[in-house]
Amino acid sequence: MKQLEFSHYQSGEYAAQHIRITPTRLADGRDFFYLDDSPEYVSGAKTRELRDPRPLVDRFAPHRDADGNEVPYAEPIMRRDLLTGEWIPMAAARMNRPITAGPGATATGNPLAARRLGDPYQDGEVPDTDYDVVVFENRFPSMVQVPGVPNDITHVDGNGLWEQKPAAGRCEVICFDPNENGLPADLPVSRLRTVVEAWAFRTAEISHIDGIEQIFPFENHGAEIGVSLAHPHGQVYCYPFIPPKMKTELQHTQAYQERTGGNLLRDIMDAEIDAGTRVVMRNSSWVGYVPAAARWPLEVHVAPLRDVKTLDELNDQERWDLASMYSHLLRRGNAFFDTGDGKGMDLPYIAAWHQAPVRDSRRESYRLNLQFFSFRRAANKIKYLAGSESGMGAWVSDTTPERIAARFHELGPVDIG
Amino acid sequence: MKQLEFSHYQSGEYAAQHIRITPTRLADGRDFFYLDDSPEYVSGAKTRELRDPRPLVDRFAPHRDADGNEVPYAEPIMRRDLLTGEWIPMAAARMNRPITAGPGATATGNPLAARRLGDPYQDGEVPDTDYDVVVFENRFPSMVQVPGVPNDITHVDGNGLWEQKPAAGRCEVICFDPNENGLPADLPVSRLRTVVEAWAFRTAEISHIDGIEQIFPFENHGAEIGVSLAHPHGQVYCYPFIPPKMKTELQHTQAYQERTGGNLLRDIMDAEIDAGTRVVMRNSSWVGYVPAAARWPLEVHVAPLRDVKTLDELNDQERWDLASMYSHLLRRGNAFFDTGDGKGMDLPYIAAWHQAPVRDSRRESYRLNLQFFSFRRAANKIKYLAGSESGMGAWVSDTTPERIAARFHELGPVDIG
Repeated sequence: MKQLEFSHYQSGEYAAQHIRITPTRLADGRDFFYLDDSPEYVSGAKTRELRDPRPLVDRFAPHRDADGNEVPYAEPIMRRDLLTGEWIPMAAARMNRPITAGPGATATGNPLAARRLGDPYQDGEVPDTDYDVVVFENRFPSMVQVPGVPNDITHVDGNGLWEQKPAAGRCEVICFDPNENGLPADLPVSRLRTVVEAWAFRTAEISHIDGIEQIFPFENHGAEIGVSLAHPHGQVYCYPFIPPKMKTELQHTQAYQERTGGNLLRDIMDAEIDAGTRVVMRNSSWVGYVPAAARWPLEVHVAPLRDVKTLDELNDQERWDLASMYSHLLRRGNAFFDTGDGKGMDLPYIAAWHQAPVRDSRRESYRLNLQFFSFRRAANKIKYLAGSESGMGAWVSDTTPERIAARFHELGPVDIG
Repeated sequence: MKQLEFSHYQSGEYAAQHIRITPTRLADGRDFFYLDDSPEYVSGAKTRELRDPRPLVDRFAPHRDADGNEVPYAEPIMRRDLLTGEWIPMAAARMNRPITAGPGATATGNPLAARRLGDPYQDGEVPDTDYDVVVFENRFPSMVQVPGVPNDITHVDGNGLWEQKPAAGRCEVICFDPNENGLPADLPVSRLRTVVEAWAFRTAEISHIDGIEQIFPFENHGAEIGVSLAHPHGQVYCYPFIPPKMKTELQHTQAYQERTGGNLLRDIMDAEIDAGTRVVMRNSSWVGYVPAAARWPLEVHVAPLRDVKTLDELNDQERWDLASMYSHLLRRGNAFFDTGDGKGMDLPYIAAWHQAPVRDSRRESYRLNLQFFSFRRAANKIKYLAGSESGMGAWVSDTTPERIAARFHELGPVDIG
């Protein structure tokens, strides 16, 4: 596996000058990065202890089972579903991950908090007493590249029909802020700017890891959608395959390009701007609109005005403008549903970055876009993915894109400057 | 729209002799069918009142809004999502449907219960004081064929990119039993046999309605997945398009047939039988197995041993054997997760019938199968469809098919007779 030197990011035209990135490793060998956005550069200071004090063994080392026998590290595998062609990563070890939010909570500490000296909870992931934004490899990854494990296809039960191979991807966690009780919606734009930098940094670096096909930064927010840690954070899933939704989108963007010479995502954005009805936010670099065929009860797509394929291609102005729009989007999202008391709510949402795949030939037809949506369909109602959605992949909307946009228009001006 | 005479079902070779089907209509014009499975034929008896006593107007009639103005019936529409090619039905009127289970409950009566004489709740859907199994059109359909509404494509905002047309499908409800507190798992096999008959009957009849492309009988069970009515019931969604998951499956079954001459679903079933490891139930007509690339924490596929494309092709023995296997499947599903007290639980699940499409040319490559799965991943944990699944369509399993099968093997013999 290639060592990360973040040469790709550092040599990039747009790397932020005000953010200092400090690489380190956790005790079990996982990559860990501090992104400090303030002049004190708290976590990067030489006087701080950067070494993870936990007595963890190398994550890929064999371990001993209950009977004292040595058991080799079991790498996550993935199998191909013959009926759909989709790879299904199977990460049985994730069953034991800590859950600190919601009804199934199994842990009381917060592994994403900065280390508190003298705190009895010794399993924190951040080996420093303060930080701004940090990124590190997930301790319970559903996909990971294991050194020395060949990336070969084998067959389940020896039957040539059933292919399986290592789920040789990568899963990273991004902590947005040291304040464990803050909401991403309440973070200052300057901190969200650092989160954007983390997305760009990781996209630039991970694009150079062999075998990664799609880099997917996303945020799951809210216990209602199963978020197991309440600390404000996002994730980056790096798939060793093109995920099904991207595959479908690429088929459509490529076919459109071949048929018309145009870029489907650009033409959709332009059409939304022309129509105007569903545009909910706009600044000098970005536009946010409810797509004409929105499927979720709350859905906004955010697109850059300039043709950009991936997050690391964004320039400094675009990164600041994105941080600002993300902040507006989250705050308006929290105000979207009528809670009766006018106070708004902590909206559960998923923010999903769709960017051009790393090397798939159809990447030229693609264009960066954020798909932001919520399962919530009223202050006291959730949209569930039941038979039609989960069984047939057929989404049924209980509202219309125009209603969603009209509600956003009540919450603030389209022009956010 | 074609009137249903159920000639297609009645002329079928396999229509059950012991089940009497009585058609009627609800006060607002919706089709309603009694399926009586006992010699008393309670609901079909001439002495019973079959007419819906509610003062409902025709469901497609114009209504008056709050200002007293006449508003025409607004048919559900669907729009094509350009980025995926998928049709998204938009049923804004469904927002107001009654919810009698879970935290967002808005109604206290049970519209699926048999009518109780003197009961103040006058909005029941069943115009009789008893029944065995009933089927009727959904009062709040996400898809419906509206007489006189042309099925033409129009363009959103006049932009040729965005297509929309009426969501001219059909949504039906099947009540499995008059006992509103019973679970499907607790129903006698003879009653489930009538439910199977309802699936076959509706498949046979609806296949002859113009414009219906896919008939999808399914059961959503459990408030945890958003079931809004606790009464034991299922649904039939009839799509005027091939739903995305079926489209993907048909691409794979067709390609496999062209490449090998074989039927992919038959070959998968045979391979599972050969491997044996993941087979969890078998009788003289059906086999149930955890698929080699299962994506849910609990997943079983049920396939007929004989090559059958659709539910109405099943013969009488296969229908009885299916009722028996469905009963075993539900009961073992309830026992699957360790609740600590050995009592098992009321498992939330989705049972999704995948059958050959009505007229798509690839139907010859398909084969009937039931995909049964649960979101539950432990007695106190739910698998949520978060960023990877909802944003990228990429399922990540937290377990393995072999573990799921091993647990089923603890719950009862594979041979269920």
